[in-house]
Amino acid sequence: MGERTQRVDARANRGRILDVAEDVFGRGGEAASTEEVARLAGVGIATVFRHFPTKAVLLQAVLVRRFDRLRSQAEALLGAADPGAAFYDFFRHLVADAATKIAIGDALLGAGGDVSGEAIEAGNGLRRAVGALLERAQRAGAVRDDAELPEVYALLVAMSRAAAHRSLDDEVRDRALAIVFDGLAPATR
Amino acid sequence: MGERTQRVDARANRGRILDVAEDVFGRGGEAASTEEVARLAGVGIATVFRHFPTKAVLLQAVLVRRFDRLRSQAEALLGAADPGAAFYDFFRHLVADAATKIAIGDALLGAGGDVSGEAIEAGNGLRRAVGALLERAQRAGAVRDDAELPEVYALLVAMSRAAAHRSLDDEVRDRALAIVFDGLAPATR
Repeated sequence: MGERTQRVDARANRGRILDVAEDVFGRGGEAASTEEVARLAGVGIATVFRHFPTKAVLLQAVLVRRFDRLRSQAEALLGAADPGAAFYDFFRHLVADAATKIAIGDALLGAGGDVSGEAIEAGNGLRRAVGALLERAQRAGAVRDDAELPEVYALLVAMSRAAAHRSLDDEVRDRALAIVFDGLAPATR
Repeated sequence: MGERTQRVDARANRGRILDVAEDVFGRGGEAASTEEVARLAGVGIATVFRHFPTKAVLLQAVLVRRFDRLRSQAEALLGAADPGAAFYDFFRHLVADAATKIAIGDALLGAGGDVSGEAIEAGNGLRRAVGALLERAQRAGAVRDDAELPEVYALLVAMSRAAAHRSLDDEVRDRALAIVFDGLAPATR
């Protein structure tokens, strides 16, 4: 096996391990272990540890990738025809996503404490992208002008946390979101 | 020492232990231990364990007392002259309170999982009292008619969790609450 093939394989393994880890740790619970990740990714535990020396390093990598993916999704919406719908839909997407990924969702938006510099940077990237979506929605008159990113992001984190921790009924979650969105709407409603 | 005196002393000890435990576990962190509770309450560790055989039992008792106290505060507000102010002020009070009591606040409103029947019942009592405040505020035209308790409580839990976990800046927290309150206001604003 040539060096290049080995590198390609290594990259494929890394990607597969991250996919599986996001799923396994996202579900949380007893079965969420590095061993389970190796088993489901179809690689040896030694391979996992070669890529990610500790569980913390693996989780960091999952977090960073998750932040980056969400940021890309937000950025893609910056070209959307309806800036208001883009903002509110992404808000709803983040919250709904958190509900199904309790364990990672927790670390995801609450990023702080033991989270590495790289994950914090990725989290800040997502925050900036949400800020850009917000600004665009405000210019389009779909979000009140006096709402600033810190409080909007606090609402996003709050709703995500509530959805993730209490496994809220989807209908109740949507009604709670509708109230928040009415609060974010310009005064004339 | 007579039996009655002993009983009175025991009750005083129990109350003091609970006061201290609420404070110690509310602050969270490394120092939050039953030993620390005993030290600050000025009793021996054996006395703490006589009243509360395990740390879990002690925490349950703290939780129950906290729910009961909040419920009493909510019920007292049912006679307030301004039902709208009573509802919004209590909402704000719960959220602000959670921010300073990270560890207990977490268990407090997210009550579920390992929480005992007694604590769940106390939590439900608080929820009912919030429901009564909400209904009164709606009758007074201060909260939109179509907001129901499940989503209002979800918002309360969400904002409390966000305030507790991220130690949100007070100003940002208040601005986020203002957005939620605008969402809860009747449509004519």
